[in-house]
Amino acid sequence: MLSFESDYTTGAHPRVLERLIETNGEAVPGYGEDKYTESAYRKIREACKLPNAQVRFITGGTQTNRIVISTMLKPYEGVIAAHTGHISCHEAGAIESSGHKVLQIAGKDGKLCAGDVDKYISEFYADGTREHMVFPGMVYISHPTEYGTLYTLDELKALSEVCRKYSIPLFLDGARLGYGLMSKDTDVTLPDIARLCDVFYIGGTKVGALCGEAIVFTKNNMPEHFIPLIKQQGALLAKGRVLGVQFDALFTDGLYFEIGKHAIELAEMLREVFLSKGYKMFIDSPTNQLFPILENEKMKGLAEKVRFSVWEKADEDHTVVRFATGWSTSREDIEALAQFL
Amino acid sequence: MLSFESDYTTGAHPRVLERLIETNGEAVPGYGEDKYTESAYRKIREACKLPNAQVRFITGGTQTNRIVISTMLKPYEGVIAAHTGHISCHEAGAIESSGHKVLQIAGKDGKLCAGDVDKYISEFYADGTREHMVFPGMVYISHPTEYGTLYTLDELKALSEVCRKYSIPLFLDGARLGYGLMSKDTDVTLPDIARLCDVFYIGGTKVGALCGEAIVFTKNNMPEHFIPLIKQQGALLAKGRVLGVQFDALFTDGLYFEIGKHAIELAEMLREVFLSKGYKMFIDSPTNQLFPILENEKMKGLAEKVRFSVWEKADEDHTVVRFATGWSTSREDIEALAQFL
Amino acid sequence: MLSFESDYTTGAHPRVLERLIETNGEAVPGYGEDKYTESAYRKIREACKLPNAQVRFITGGTQTNRIVISTMLKPYEGVIAAHTGHISCHEAGAIESSGHKVLQIAGKDGKLCAGDVDKYISEFYADGTREHMVFPGMVYISHPTEYGTLYTLDELKALSEVCRKYSIPLFLDGARLGYGLMSKDTDVTLPDIARLCDVFYIGGTKVGALCGEAIVFTKNNMPEHFIPLIKQQGALLAKGRVLGVQFDALFTDGLYFEIGKHAIELAEMLREVFLSKGYKMFIDSPTNQLFPILENEKMKGLAEKVRFSVWEKADEDHTVVRFATGWSTSREDIEALAQFL
Amino acid sequence: MLSFESDYTTGAHPRVLERLIETNGEAVPGYGEDKYTESAYRKIREACKLPNAQVRFITGGTQTNRIVISTMLKPYEGVIAAHTGHISCHEAGAIESSGHKVLQIAGKDGKLCAGDVDKYISEFYADGTREHMVFPGMVYISHPTEYGTLYTLDELKALSEVCRKYSIPLFLDGARLGYGLMSKDTDVTLPDIARLCDVFYIGGTKVGALCGEAIVFTKNNMPEHFIPLIKQQGALLAKGRVLGVQFDALFTDGLYFEIGKHAIELAEMLREVFLSKGYKMFIDSPTNQLFPILENEKMKGLAEKVRFSVWEKADEDHTVVRFATGWSTSREDIEALAQFL
Repeated sequence: MLSFESDYTTGAHPRVLERLIETNGEAVPGYGEDKYTESAYRKIREACKLPNAQVRFITGGTQTNRIVISTMLKPYEGVIAAHTGHISCHEAGAIESSGHKVLQIAGKDGKLCAGDVDKYISEFYADGTREHMVFPGMVYISHPTEYGTLYTLDELKALSEVCRKYSIPLFLDGARLGYGLMSKDTDVTLPDIARLCDVFYIGGTKVGALCGEAIVFTKNNMPEHFIPLIKQQGALLAKGRVLGVQFDALFTDGLYFEIGKHAIELAEMLREVFLSKGYKMFIDSPTNQLFPILENEKMKGLAEKVRFSVWEKADEDHTVVRFATGWSTSREDIEALAQFL
Repeated sequence: MLSFESDYTTGAHPRVLERLIETNGEAVPGYGEDKYTESAYRKIREACKLPNAQVRFITGGTQTNRIVISTMLKPYEGVIAAHTGHISCHEAGAIESSGHKVLQIAGKDGKLCAGDVDKYISEFYADGTREHMVFPGMVYISHPTEYGTLYTLDELKALSEVCRKYSIPLFLDGARLGYGLMSKDTDVTLPDIARLCDVFYIGGTKVGALCGEAIVFTKNNMPEHFIPLIKQQGALLAKGRVLGVQFDALFTDGLYFEIGKHAIELAEMLREVFLSKGYKMFIDSPTNQLFPILENEKMKGLAEKVRFSVWEKADEDHTVVRFATGWSTSREDIEALAQFL
Repeated sequence: MLSFESDYTTGAHPRVLERLIETNGEAVPGYGEDKYTESAYRKIREACKLPNAQVRFITGGTQTNRIVISTMLKPYEGVIAAHTGHISCHEAGAIESSGHKVLQIAGKDGKLCAGDVDKYISEFYADGTREHMVFPGMVYISHPTEYGTLYTLDELKALSEVCRKYSIPLFLDGARLGYGLMSKDTDVTLPDIARLCDVFYIGGTKVGALCGEAIVFTKNNMPEHFIPLIKQQGALLAKGRVLGVQFDALFTDGLYFEIGKHAIELAEMLREVFLSKGYKMFIDSPTNQLFPILENEKMKGLAEKVRFSVWEKADEDHTVVRFATGWSTSREDIEALAQFL
Repeated sequence: MLSFESDYTTGAHPRVLERLIETNGEAVPGYGEDKYTESAYRKIREACKLPNAQVRFITGGTQTNRIVISTMLKPYEGVIAAHTGHISCHEAGAIESSGHKVLQIAGKDGKLCAGDVDKYISEFYADGTREHMVFPGMVYISHPTEYGTLYTLDELKALSEVCRKYSIPLFLDGARLGYGLMSKDTDVTLPDIARLCDVFYIGGTKVGALCGEAIVFTKNNMPEHFIPLIKQQGALLAKGRVLGVQFDALFTDGLYFEIGKHAIELAEMLREVFLSKGYKMFIDSPTNQLFPILENEKMKGLAEKVRFSVWEKADEDHTVVRFATGWSTSREDIEALAQFL
């Protein structure tokens, strides 16, 4: 059965898997003290053009968001996010469970507008009752967003400036960063992100790894005793090598970018198929997730042959669905899909 | 360099790795909804002789302890543990971080005595100020313990009875369960554990997997909406297959027990080496961890050729160290070590 | 200086204070085990016409909200509230600090609409990704609301029905309940609230007490071991009598309602003064809080003679302010204010 | 019935009550912004001979401990306390509920020994696995202790030096500080405490107030945005005046010390009664709590005429009980008790 439901349906990219196989028998220290982890840190720092960046690996995205946010916020602070942000709605309350409020601001196409953030914070500080309110202590954005959209370099700069203005960190959730960086419609590079954000993560799970996300602290601002903090949240792998080896592979010979490029090219091919068949898109996504609108009857028929995600109701007779590409999507898959449409 | 420092220094057992490779390209649903996870659940239920057991996979041990304990306790309850228990001292406060007190009782050789637990709880309920105290809401034991020791079947039954008496769950941390089950000195089987405990976990990370622990709820007592609870703690893997495939392999053709048996045999060989050379053991461990006492000078010399863990000071001139065996330990390793001693 | 800034600027109503004085020297058990607390419980049950209601006293409102919500919700649940609700914006993140998300829904004039709540919950249960979302586990309303408005009996019934439909509790924050019950525009009585809500609190701090709120569990649904839970949050007074004696006084000879009636009458007189002088009201509040709109220049002048609260900007030249009456407000105060306007 | 069960059975000292009455009708700002609170702060700073001390009022002791400890510790830190400390056993897990471990050390007569604390911390820092352990981040002591005993000035200095050595704060729980300061056997003054501790609290609830404890930060070390932190825990009283007025009265004309002196004198008289009748004391307490050992039969008879606290079993036939004196204990009470014994 054809599978377009997400970018985490298959295992690891062959070159990632290969490195796991090659290094499997070697005995190395645990808890991320191994040479593969060290090598991966170095390669990521280089890719970010940030020699002093502090890198740490965490198994999954929600865990990463929870750890970064809860360890960087002060207890009286919350994190600003778009109302559609992953932390706002699809992490089962992980941030609140760690004691912090997600300060939701209406986003547009999944994105936060710098002006709205500035207005929110300035109004907070102008409010005479602010000592009874949650202090805005961080700005969270996802890039690509949950709708596959991207910030422009100017938008990112503007958000970064607002954060500088109020001395709070800008945190970028890059669960699908590889696809964002290789989009044809972006002017944002990895070094741009490293320069403009205070902390961000490079998603592995959805970009060719079995699991794993790389947190990058860009301003020598990794929380003190970060390892105990990770351990306390239950997120310190005994075989830290599992993450180290994978990221080492992803950042060797540009594999991470290659995976992104492949998925982007296939997503464009996929978009062409949909458009050529007369389908409309719910949103104009320049990355690896497409949101075509299907007639409900058509959708049911298609679901018998292809796996995709149901996103939301468009109207009584139509539904927004999601098709995603990844490292394992092939041209043949898309050609087969074209037959069914 | 020879490595005996722990049972998590190498990757996955070859047969586990092989299954990861074989299944890598196949697209399956995420978040543990895949067929490999389902198959692994079934095989674990069979191995436990408990057709109705509820099984779930978590990436690591501290995370598992945190999730099991915090989701099964009521907010006014704490968990009883030996003062040497992993949750008492080596999880960076993970349990307290989730809001619950670890009620530490003096253990002996890493083990809790049923009589001590009974006394603690009965005194609690006899105390007129108990509404100002932390209610004992669970008993936590590790098997093997942190010192490699094992509960006898009678000891386990006695603990189970105390828990029945006070209607609180008995939770067994089986991070190294495979080694405990295959010890020559044990009369405890996996079905015994499944029958006597309310919840336990079968450790994968330290017994041949890259990562992963299998929680088994034995009395249809898995907390309601356990998936959101796992997600909230950041512990729900998008590629849940990674854990499912590994446990499916571990519980195919008795691999899990085979790994245990191998390590136990090599640990016995290793013990013979130490004893034959005149070393004393700090504790008489019947599993894969040995705790020889080394003269400090000797220890320094040895450390140049072999990796092992420093455990604690024995006296001014001697140190307790730990040597562990695992799936990747070979007879050659032990023979080489014998040369150095 | 005239003071209209709030209903908590003066101490206790003289009859409350008198009872504190009368009982001061008597030795009684601590922690709410005294006869005054018991007597107050009984009188509140009678006033609610609910013989089995479970009553407990807590010192302040935010503490009460935090304790009720965090002890009644399951860890995977959040509480639905209007975006203007006290827990949504003016409790410094107390609910999130206890681990739970406030699920904010747009309110109207401070009120939640039953239809909106129903829609929110039904959409939640229709969502295929709900296991990654926060479960709606309670509905929180304030009555009077933060804008001084009131639910009608029909609106309250409708909210209660929605909660019944989804088997979640309806929680009413009655920090200013006395004023709501005695409003001329209400058809809601205390027994109505006791019947329709699963839990609510009768505010003391803002209705004539020095401090204290009375939680009423109406359906034999007080969380198990509620005293340890209160203690754990630091909210169990050693001299529980302080709250017991005050509520005993408030519910003797209808004092609580008398205080409400007095403040409502003076608020009406105050409204007349504002309207007769040509001021407009920001919202039509039928309780003890009025929200006149003042010209900024006028406001500055007035602030030299009268204390009131600045609420929010109306436009460039006008500001919404709040004037509140309470047990200590007198006709003379209002006449004096009329002179200044 | 005679009452010796505790020092919180009666209301406020008459002079405290009188000030509440005198100031009751006056309108003042809420949330501790009133002039009485400011005056009380000033008087406490003077009594501590510490012009820059930062003072804040909290309603009760457990709440104070929870707030001070959880806002001063970093998330990876725990608090060292005697195993008999109030936070170790009689606060229903309040500290753990805030996310932090209480690192229990065996105390002697309720007291922590500086040498033991030093040893504990130095061993922690020498441990190679400390990143998997809870960091010692504060030392908590009570003075008087839960057994009525007192630290000597030298003992307090030694503890303070250990804290200086490791750069962690020393926190003194002074729930019954007034009795400690006025004991005939003490060489510790309030300025000594203010100089040697980093933070402490002056107990009001058990020393003549209706409720209230005064936190004193001695080194300009009050956590940033402390008011939102208090609010978030639900501990910010709207009528902050209630605490301000009471502490203003307690620190006017030495009332706090006078109350302490009175209770100490009566406790001495009470001890004489017990000793003269041949009773033995479980511990030699120099403050307002006495722990005589009663024959069980005798105890039952006495309990019909006098209220006291049952402490613990001494042996099969004897029980340790507690008799406490307070502001309201009179010579007549003790004479009457002497008749019964």
